[in-house]
Amino acid sequence: MSEFTPTGRTKVRRKPDRGSYDRELIYNILDQAFVCHVAFVADGMPFVVPTNYVRVGDKLFLHGSPASRLMKALSSGPFCLSVTLLDGIVFAPTAMGHSVNYRSVVVMGKAEIVEGHAAKLAAMRDFVEYVVRGRWETVRPPTEQEIKATMVLAVPLVEASAKVRTGFAVDSDAEYSSAAWTGILPFRWGPEEPERDPRGSAKIPVPANIANYVRPQ
Amino acid sequence: MSEFTPTGRTKVRRKPDRGSYDRELIYNILDQAFVCHVAFVADGMPFVVPTNYVRVGDKLFLHGSPASRLMKALSSGPFCLSVTLLDGIVFAPTAMGHSVNYRSVVVMGKAEIVEGHAAKLAAMRDFVEYVVRGRWETVRPPTEQEIKATMVLAVPLVEASAKVRTGFAVDSDAEYSSAAWTGILPFRWGPEEPERDPRGSAKIPVPANIANYVRPQ
Repeated sequence: MSEFTPTGRTKVRRKPDRGSYDRELIYNILDQAFVCHVAFVADGMPFVVPTNYVRVGDKLFLHGSPASRLMKALSSGPFCLSVTLLDGIVFAPTAMGHSVNYRSVVVMGKAEIVEGHAAKLAAMRDFVEYVVRGRWETVRPPTEQEIKATMVLAVPLVEASAKVRTGFAVDSDAEYSSAAWTGILPFRWGPEEPERDPRGSAKIPVPANIANYVRPQ
Repeated sequence: MSEFTPTGRTKVRRKPDRGSYDRELIYNILDQAFVCHVAFVADGMPFVVPTNYVRVGDKLFLHGSPASRLMKALSSGPFCLSVTLLDGIVFAPTAMGHSVNYRSVVVMGKAEIVEGHAAKLAAMRDFVEYVVRGRWETVRPPTEQEIKATMVLAVPLVEASAKVRTGFAVDSDAEYSSAAWTGILPFRWGPEEPERDPRGSAKIPVPANIANYVRPQ
Protein backbone atom coordinates (compact mmCIF):
# COMPACT_ATOMS: atom_id res chain seq x y z
CA MET A 1 0.00 0.00 0.00
CA SER A 2 1.04 3.60 -0.48
CA GLU A 3 1.84 6.42 1.89
CA PHE A 4 -0.19 9.57 2.40
CA THR A 5 1.75 12.73 1.61
CA PRO A 6 2.13 14.74 4.81
CA THR A 7 0.74 18.28 4.51
CA GLY A 8 1.04 21.34 6.71
CA ARG A 9 -2.10 20.12 8.46
CA THR A 10 -1.29 16.43 8.89
CA LYS A 11 2.47 16.46 9.45
CA VAL A 12 3.18 15.11 12.94
CA ARG A 13 5.29 17.81 14.60
CA ARG A 14 5.28 16.78 18.27
CA LYS A 15 7.29 13.56 18.68
CA PRO A 16 7.61 13.03 14.91
CA ASP A 17 9.10 9.57 15.53
CA ARG A 18 5.57 8.52 16.53
CA GLY A 19 4.09 9.80 13.27
CA SER A 20 3.21 7.67 10.27
CA TYR A 21 1.61 8.28 6.91
CA ASP A 22 1.36 4.60 6.04
CA ARG A 23 -1.98 3.86 4.41
CA GLU A 24 -2.18 0.29 5.68
CA LEU A 25 -1.54 1.34 9.29
CA ILE A 26 -4.01 4.23 9.05
CA TYR A 27 -6.71 2.00 7.55
CA ASN A 28 -6.12 -0.65 10.19
CA ILE A 29 -6.66 1.89 12.98
CA LEU A 30 -9.77 3.26 11.27
CA ASP A 31 -11.15 -0.26 10.86
CA GLN A 32 -10.57 -1.26 14.48
CA ALA A 33 -12.08 1.87 15.97
CA PHE A 34 -15.78 2.46 15.79
CA VAL A 35 -16.48 6.05 16.73
CA CYS A 36 -14.68 9.11 15.44
CA HIS A 37 -14.65 12.62 16.88
CA VAL A 38 -15.39 15.22 14.24
CA ALA A 39 -14.33 18.84 14.70
CA PHE A 40 -15.85 21.69 12.76
CA VAL A 41 -16.12 25.44 13.05
CA ALA A 42 -19.51 27.10 13.56
CA ASP A 43 -19.85 30.83 14.18
CA GLY A 44 -16.08 30.93 14.47
CA MET A 45 -16.10 28.51 17.41
CA PRO A 46 -14.70 24.98 17.46
CA PHE A 47 -17.04 22.06 18.09
CA VAL A 48 -16.33 18.37 18.41
CA VAL A 49 -18.95 15.64 18.21
CA PRO A 50 -18.63 11.84 18.30
CA THR A 51 -20.15 9.97 15.39
CA ASN A 52 -20.14 6.57 13.74
CA TYR A 53 -18.38 5.88 10.44
CA VAL A 54 -17.30 3.06 8.17
CA ARG A 55 -14.29 2.92 5.91
CA VAL A 56 -14.93 1.55 2.43
CA GLY A 57 -11.84 1.53 0.26
CA ASP A 58 -10.28 4.99 0.13
CA LYS A 59 -13.15 6.80 1.77
CA LEU A 60 -15.16 7.08 4.95
CA PHE A 61 -18.92 7.26 5.07
CA LEU A 62 -20.72 9.34 7.69
CA HIS A 63 -24.47 9.68 8.00
CA GLY A 64 -27.08 11.51 9.97
CA SER A 65 -30.16 13.65 9.84
CA PRO A 66 -29.95 16.48 7.26
CA ALA A 67 -31.37 18.72 10.01
CA SER A 68 -28.50 18.08 12.42
CA ARG A 69 -25.91 20.76 13.07
CA LEU A 70 -23.22 18.16 12.48
CA MET A 71 -24.42 17.16 9.02
CA LYS A 72 -25.00 20.78 8.05
CA ALA A 73 -21.49 21.73 9.10
CA LEU A 74 -19.80 18.72 7.53
CA SER A 75 -21.60 19.06 4.22
CA SER A 76 -20.69 22.73 3.89
CA GLY A 77 -17.10 23.14 5.01
CA PRO A 78 -13.79 21.55 5.92
CA PHE A 79 -13.51 19.45 9.04
CA CYS A 80 -11.08 17.28 10.92
CA LEU A 81 -11.75 13.90 12.44
CA SER A 82 -9.81 11.70 14.78
CA VAL A 83 -10.04 8.16 16.11
CA THR A 84 -7.99 6.85 19.00
CA LEU A 85 -7.36 3.34 20.29
CA LEU A 86 -6.04 3.29 23.81
CA ASP A 87 -3.67 0.36 24.18
CA GLY A 88 -2.29 0.74 27.67
CA ILE A 89 -0.97 2.77 30.57
CA VAL A 90 2.83 2.92 30.79
CA PHE A 91 4.16 2.85 34.35
CA ALA A 92 7.57 4.47 34.69
CA PRO A 93 9.95 4.85 37.63
CA THR A 94 9.51 8.65 37.47
CA ALA A 95 6.29 10.64 37.67
CA MET A 96 6.95 12.43 34.39
CA GLY A 97 7.93 9.22 32.63
CA HIS A 98 4.41 7.82 32.80
CA SER A 99 2.74 7.62 29.44
CA VAL A 100 -0.03 6.09 27.40
CA ASN A 101 0.25 3.61 24.55
CA TYR A 102 -2.18 4.47 21.80
CA ARG A 103 -2.82 4.46 18.08
CA SER A 104 -4.58 7.50 16.67
CA VAL A 105 -5.49 8.81 13.25
CA VAL A 106 -6.29 12.33 12.16
CA VAL A 107 -8.09 12.93 8.85
CA MET A 108 -8.56 16.34 7.26
CA GLY A 109 -11.87 16.11 5.50
CA LYS A 110 -14.07 17.67 2.97
CA ALA A 111 -17.26 15.73 2.38
CA GLU A 112 -19.11 14.89 -0.78
CA ILE A 113 -22.85 14.50 -0.35
CA VAL A 114 -23.91 11.08 -1.62
CA GLU A 115 -26.91 11.70 -3.88
CA GLY A 116 -29.42 9.40 -5.52
CA HIS A 117 -31.35 6.41 -4.23
CA ALA A 118 -28.97 3.70 -5.47
CA ALA A 119 -25.80 5.33 -4.17
CA LYS A 120 -27.35 6.09 -0.78
CA LEU A 121 -28.75 2.58 -0.49
CA ALA A 122 -25.32 1.13 -1.30
CA ALA A 123 -23.72 3.31 1.38
CA MET A 124 -26.30 2.20 3.93
CA ARG A 125 -25.60 -1.39 3.06
CA ASP A 126 -21.93 -0.65 3.72
CA PHE A 127 -22.84 0.93 7.05
CA VAL A 128 -24.48 -2.30 8.17
CA GLU A 129 -22.05 -4.72 6.53
CA TYR A 130 -18.88 -3.02 7.73
CA VAL A 131 -20.14 -3.24 11.29
CA VAL A 132 -21.18 -6.88 11.00
CA ARG A 133 -20.53 -8.82 7.83
CA GLY A 134 -23.62 -10.74 6.69
CA ARG A 135 -26.11 -8.66 8.63
CA TRP A 136 -27.66 -6.81 5.67
CA GLU A 137 -29.29 -9.92 4.17
CA THR A 138 -31.10 -10.65 7.43
CA VAL A 139 -32.78 -7.29 8.06
CA ARG A 140 -35.54 -5.24 6.46
CA PRO A 141 -33.83 -2.86 4.01
CA PRO A 142 -34.39 0.91 4.19
CA THR A 143 -37.56 2.30 2.66
CA GLU A 144 -37.46 5.14 0.16
CA GLN A 145 -38.68 7.44 2.92
CA GLU A 146 -35.94 6.33 5.31
CA ILE A 147 -33.32 6.92 2.63
CA LYS A 148 -34.67 10.39 1.88
CA ALA A 149 -34.54 11.28 5.57
CA THR A 150 -30.85 10.40 5.86
CA MET A 151 -27.88 12.42 4.69
CA VAL A 152 -24.90 10.33 3.66
CA LEU A 153 -21.46 11.90 3.31
CA ALA A 154 -18.42 10.39 1.63
CA VAL A 155 -15.05 11.62 2.88
CA PRO A 156 -12.20 10.82 0.46
CA LEU A 157 -9.11 9.80 2.42
CA VAL A 158 -6.56 12.24 1.04
CA GLU A 159 -4.96 14.01 4.02
CA ALA A 160 -4.38 11.65 6.92
CA SER A 161 -1.75 10.75 9.46
CA ALA A 162 -1.34 8.31 12.32
CA LYS A 163 0.44 8.66 15.63
CA VAL A 164 1.43 5.57 17.59
CA ARG A 165 3.16 4.96 20.90
CA THR A 166 4.18 1.46 21.89
CA GLY A 167 6.54 -0.06 24.41
CA PHE A 168 7.76 0.60 27.91
CA ALA A 169 8.88 3.79 29.63
CA VAL A 170 11.89 5.65 28.24
CA ASP A 171 13.36 6.88 31.52
CA SER A 172 17.12 6.46 31.84
CA ASP A 173 18.46 3.22 33.29
CA ALA A 174 19.56 5.03 36.46
CA GLU A 175 15.92 5.78 37.32
CA TYR A 176 15.13 2.06 37.52
CA SER A 177 16.79 1.77 40.93
CA SER A 178 13.43 3.02 42.27
CA ALA A 179 11.22 0.59 44.20
CA ALA A 180 8.19 1.26 41.96
CA TRP A 181 6.77 -1.53 39.79
CA THR A 182 7.26 -0.62 36.14
CA GLY A 183 5.58 -1.98 33.07
CA ILE A 184 2.48 -1.70 30.93
CA LEU A 185 -1.13 -2.24 31.89
CA PRO A 186 -2.64 -3.16 28.52
CA PHE A 187 -6.22 -2.20 27.76
CA ARG A 188 -8.59 -3.84 25.35
CA TRP A 189 -11.92 -2.78 24.02
CA GLY A 190 -14.01 -5.78 23.16
CA PRO A 191 -17.42 -7.42 23.11
CA GLU A 192 -19.08 -9.14 26.03
CA GLU A 193 -22.02 -11.58 26.07
CA PRO A 194 -24.84 -10.59 23.67
CA GLU A 195 -28.15 -9.60 25.32
CA ARG A 196 -31.31 -10.69 23.55
CA ASP A 197 -33.97 -8.09 22.78
CA PRO A 198 -37.11 -9.32 24.62
CA ARG A 199 -39.23 -8.22 21.64
CA GLY A 200 -37.33 -10.63 19.31
CA SER A 201 -38.18 -14.33 19.12
CA ALA A 202 -36.35 -16.41 21.74
CA LYS A 203 -36.13 -19.17 19.12
CA ILE A 204 -33.64 -17.23 16.98
CA PRO A 205 -30.12 -18.15 18.14
CA VAL A 206 -27.33 -15.56 18.34
CA PRO A 207 -25.68 -15.80 14.90
CA ALA A 208 -21.96 -16.58 14.70
CA ASN A 209 -21.06 -13.13 13.31
CA ILE A 210 -22.41 -11.58 16.53
CA ALA A 211 -21.55 -14.34 19.03
CA ASN A 212 -17.93 -14.35 17.80
CA TYR A 213 -17.76 -10.69 16.94
CA VAL A 214 -14.31 -9.29 16.25
CA ARG A 215 -13.20 -5.92 15.00
CA PRO A 216 -10.51 -6.29 12.32
CA GLN A 217 -7.07 -6.64 13.93
CA MET B 1 -25.10 17.46 42.77
CA SER B 2 -26.21 20.32 40.57
CA GLU B 3 -27.04 20.63 36.91
CA PHE B 4 -25.09 22.54 34.29
CA THR B 5 -27.09 25.30 32.63
CA PRO B 6 -27.49 24.43 28.94
CA THR B 7 -26.17 27.17 26.66
CA GLY B 8 -26.49 27.77 22.93
CA ARG B 9 -23.35 25.71 22.53
CA THR B 10 -24.08 22.79 24.86
CA LYS B 11 -27.84 22.37 24.47
CA VAL B 12 -28.50 18.93 22.97
CA ARG B 13 -30.62 19.60 19.91
CA ARG B 14 -30.57 16.27 18.03
CA LYS B 15 -32.52 13.68 20.02
CA PRO B 16 -32.85 15.98 23.06
CA ASP B 17 -34.27 13.07 25.09
CA ARG B 18 -30.72 11.68 25.11
CA GLY B 19 -29.29 14.93 26.50
CA SER B 20 -28.40 15.56 30.11
CA TYR B 21 -26.83 18.39 32.06
CA ASP B 22 -26.53 16.43 35.28
CA ARG B 23 -23.19 17.11 36.90
CA GLU B 24 -22.92 13.68 38.54
CA LEU B 25 -23.54 11.87 35.25
CA ILE B 26 -21.12 14.13 33.36
CA TYR B 27 -18.40 13.67 35.98
CA ASN B 28 -18.92 9.91 36.00
CA ILE B 29 -18.40 9.73 32.22
CA LEU B 30 -15.33 11.97 32.42
CA ASP B 31 -13.89 9.80 35.20
CA GLN B 32 -14.41 6.52 33.35
CA ALA B 33 -12.94 7.70 30.06
CA PHE B 34 -9.26 8.32 29.75
CA VAL B 35 -8.64 10.20 26.54
CA CYS B 36 -10.51 13.25 25.30
CA HIS B 37 -10.59 14.70 21.81
CA VAL B 38 -9.93 18.43 21.83
CA ALA B 39 -11.05 20.64 18.96
CA PHE B 40 -9.59 24.05 18.30
CA VAL B 41 -9.38 26.52 15.43
CA ALA B 42 -6.02 27.36 13.87
CA ASP B 43 -5.73 29.58 10.79
CA GLY B 44 -9.51 29.38 10.54
CA MET B 45 -9.43 25.59 10.19
CA PRO B 46 -10.77 23.03 12.65
CA PHE B 47 -8.37 20.57 14.26
CA VAL B 48 -9.00 17.71 16.65
CA VAL B 49 -6.34 15.98 18.70
CA PRO B 50 -6.59 13.23 21.33
CA THR B 51 -5.06 13.99 24.69
CA ASN B 52 -5.01 12.76 28.24
CA TYR B 53 -6.78 14.57 31.08
CA VAL B 54 -7.82 14.17 34.67
CA ARG B 55 -10.85 15.61 36.41
CA VAL B 56 -10.21 17.12 39.83
CA GLY B 57 -13.32 18.60 41.41
CA ASP B 58 -14.94 21.09 39.06
CA LYS B 59 -12.08 21.26 36.60
CA LEU B 60 -10.07 19.25 34.14
CA PHE B 61 -6.31 19.35 33.90
CA LEU B 62 -4.52 19.01 30.57
CA HIS B 63 -0.78 19.10 30.06
CA GLY B 64 1.82 19.05 27.36
CA SER B 65 4.85 20.72 25.93
CA PRO B 66 4.57 24.53 25.75
CA ALA B 67 5.97 24.18 22.20
CA SER B 68 3.12 21.98 20.97
CA ARG B 69 0.49 23.35 18.63
CA LEU B 70 -2.16 21.90 20.93
CA MET B 71 -0.95 23.66 24.07
CA LYS B 72 -0.45 26.92 22.19
CA ALA B 73 -3.98 26.76 20.79
CA LEU B 74 -5.62 25.73 24.05
CA SER B 75 -3.84 28.34 26.12
CA SER B 76 -4.83 31.15 23.78
CA GLY B 77 -8.44 30.59 22.71
CA PRO B 78 -11.70 28.75 23.24
CA PHE B 79 -11.91 25.05 22.52
CA CYS B 80 -14.30 22.15 22.76
CA LEU B 81 -13.55 18.70 24.05
CA SER B 82 -15.43 15.45 23.97
CA VAL B 83 -15.12 12.02 25.54
CA THR B 84 -17.13 9.01 24.44
CA LEU B 85 -17.68 5.61 26.02
CA LEU B 86 -18.97 3.04 23.57
CA ASP B 87 -21.28 0.68 25.42
CA GLY B 88 -22.64 -1.55 22.68
CA ILE B 89 -23.97 -2.20 19.22
CA VAL B 90 -27.77 -2.33 18.97
CA PHE B 91 -29.06 -4.92 16.51
CA ALA B 92 -32.51 -4.07 15.15
CA PRO B 93 -34.86 -5.93 12.81
CA THR B 94 -34.49 -3.13 10.24
CA ALA B 95 -31.30 -1.80 8.67
CA MET B 96 -32.01 1.77 9.72
CA GLY B 97 -32.98 0.73 13.26
CA HIS B 98 -29.42 -0.31 14.10
CA SER B 99 -27.77 1.96 16.61
CA VAL B 100 -25.00 2.37 19.10
CA ASN B 101 -25.25 2.64 22.87
CA TYR B 102 -22.87 5.24 24.19
CA ARG B 103 -22.24 7.87 26.83
CA SER B 104 -20.56 11.04 25.66
CA VAL B 105 -19.70 14.41 27.15
CA VAL B 106 -18.98 17.68 25.41
CA VAL B 107 -17.22 20.48 27.31
CA MET B 108 -16.81 24.02 26.02
CA GLY B 109 -13.53 25.16 27.40
CA LYS B 110 -11.37 28.08 28.08
CA ALA B 111 -8.15 27.21 29.82
CA GLU B 112 -6.30 28.89 32.64
CA ILE B 113 -2.56 28.39 32.59
CA VAL B 114 -1.44 26.90 35.90
CA GLU B 115 1.52 28.99 37.02
CA GLY B 116 4.07 28.56 39.78
CA HIS B 117 6.07 25.58 40.97
CA ALA B 118 3.74 24.50 43.78
CA ALA B 119 0.54 24.68 41.72
CA LYS B 120 2.11 22.83 38.79
CA LEU B 121 3.57 20.18 41.07
CA ALA B 122 0.16 19.66 42.69
CA ALA B 123 -1.45 19.27 39.26
CA MET B 124 1.16 16.73 38.21
CA ARG B 125 0.52 14.78 41.37
CA ASP B 126 -3.16 14.78 40.44
CA PHE B 127 -2.25 13.55 36.94
CA VAL B 128 -0.55 10.52 38.43
CA GLU B 129 -2.94 9.93 41.34
CA TYR B 130 -6.12 10.22 39.29
CA VAL B 131 -4.83 7.57 36.92
CA VAL B 132 -3.74 5.21 39.70
CA ARG B 133 -4.37 6.09 43.33
CA GLY B 134 -1.26 5.58 45.47
CA ARG B 135 1.22 5.75 42.61
CA TRP B 136 2.71 9.16 43.38
CA GLU B 137 4.38 8.07 46.63
CA THR B 138 6.25 5.27 44.83
CA VAL B 139 7.84 7.24 41.98
CA ARG B 140 10.56 9.86 41.64
CA PRO B 141 8.79 13.25 41.70
CA PRO B 142 9.28 15.80 38.90
CA THR B 143 12.41 17.93 38.98
CA GLU B 144 12.22 21.69 38.74
CA GLN B 145 13.42 21.40 35.14
CA GLU B 146 10.72 18.85 34.25
CA ILE B 147 8.08 21.11 35.76
CA LYS B 148 9.37 24.12 33.83
CA ALA B 149 9.24 22.13 30.58
CA THR B 150 5.56 21.25 31.03
CA MET B 151 2.55 23.45 30.47
CA VAL B 152 -0.40 22.64 32.69
CA LEU B 153 -3.86 23.94 31.85
CA ALA B 154 -6.89 23.99 34.12
CA VAL B 155 -10.27 23.92 32.41
CA PRO B 156 -13.12 25.00 34.70
CA LEU B 157 -16.19 22.84 34.05
CA VAL B 158 -18.78 25.50 33.33
CA GLU B 159 -20.41 24.62 29.99
CA ALA B 160 -20.91 20.89 29.61
CA SER B 161 -23.51 18.40 28.47
CA ALA B 162 -23.85 14.64 28.18
CA LYS B 163 -25.61 12.51 25.62
CA VAL B 164 -26.52 8.93 26.43
CA ARG B 165 -28.21 6.13 24.52
CA THR B 166 -29.18 2.94 26.31
CA GLY B 167 -31.47 0.02 25.62
CA PHE B 168 -32.69 -2.01 22.68
CA ALA B 169 -33.85 -0.99 19.21
CA VAL B 170 -36.89 1.25 18.92
CA ASP B 171 -38.36 -0.23 15.73
CA SER B 172 -42.12 -0.82 15.83
CA ASP B 173 -43.39 -4.16 17.11
CA ALA B 174 -44.47 -5.15 13.61
CA GLU B 175 -40.85 -5.17 12.44
CA TYR B 176 -40.01 -7.91 14.93
CA SER B 177 -41.62 -10.56 12.73
CA SER B 178 -38.26 -10.59 10.89
CA ALA B 179 -35.99 -13.62 11.22
CA ALA B 180 -32.99 -11.50 12.31
CA TRP B 181 -31.56 -11.91 15.79
CA THR B 182 -32.10 -8.69 17.75
CA GLY B 183 -30.40 -7.44 20.85
CA ILE B 184 -27.34 -5.66 22.15
CA LEU B 185 -23.71 -6.67 21.82
CA PRO B 186 -22.20 -4.90 24.85
CA PHE B 187 -18.65 -3.64 24.67
CA ARG B 188 -16.29 -3.04 27.51
CA TRP B 189 -12.98 -1.27 27.67
CA GLY B 190 -10.84 -2.73 30.39
CA PRO B 191 -7.39 -3.79 31.56
CA GLU B 192 -5.68 -7.05 30.70
CA GLU B 193 -2.69 -8.76 32.41
CA PRO B 194 0.09 -6.28 33.35
CA GLU B 195 3.39 -6.71 31.47
CA ARG B 196 6.55 -6.16 33.47
CA ASP B 197 9.18 -3.74 32.14
CA PRO B 198 12.34 -5.85 31.69
CA ARG B 199 14.41 -2.94 33.01
CA GLY B 200 12.54 -3.02 36.34
CA SER B 201 13.44 -5.47 39.11
CA ALA B 202 11.67 -8.82 38.75
CA LYS B 203 11.48 -8.92 42.56
CA ILE B 204 8.95 -6.09 42.70
CA PRO B 205 5.46 -7.62 42.57
CA VAL B 206 2.64 -5.98 40.63
CA PRO B 207 0.96 -3.75 43.24
CA ALA B 208 -2.74 -4.22 43.96
CA ASN B 209 -3.71 -0.83 42.51
CA ILE B 210 -2.39 -1.98 39.12
CA ALA B 211 -3.18 -5.72 39.31
CA ASN B 212 -6.80 -4.94 40.21
CA TYR B 213 -7.05 -1.73 38.22
CA VAL B 214 -10.52 -0.32 37.76
CA ARG B 215 -11.70 2.91 36.26
CA PRO B 216 -14.41 4.49 38.44
CA GLN B 217 -17.83 3.01 37.57
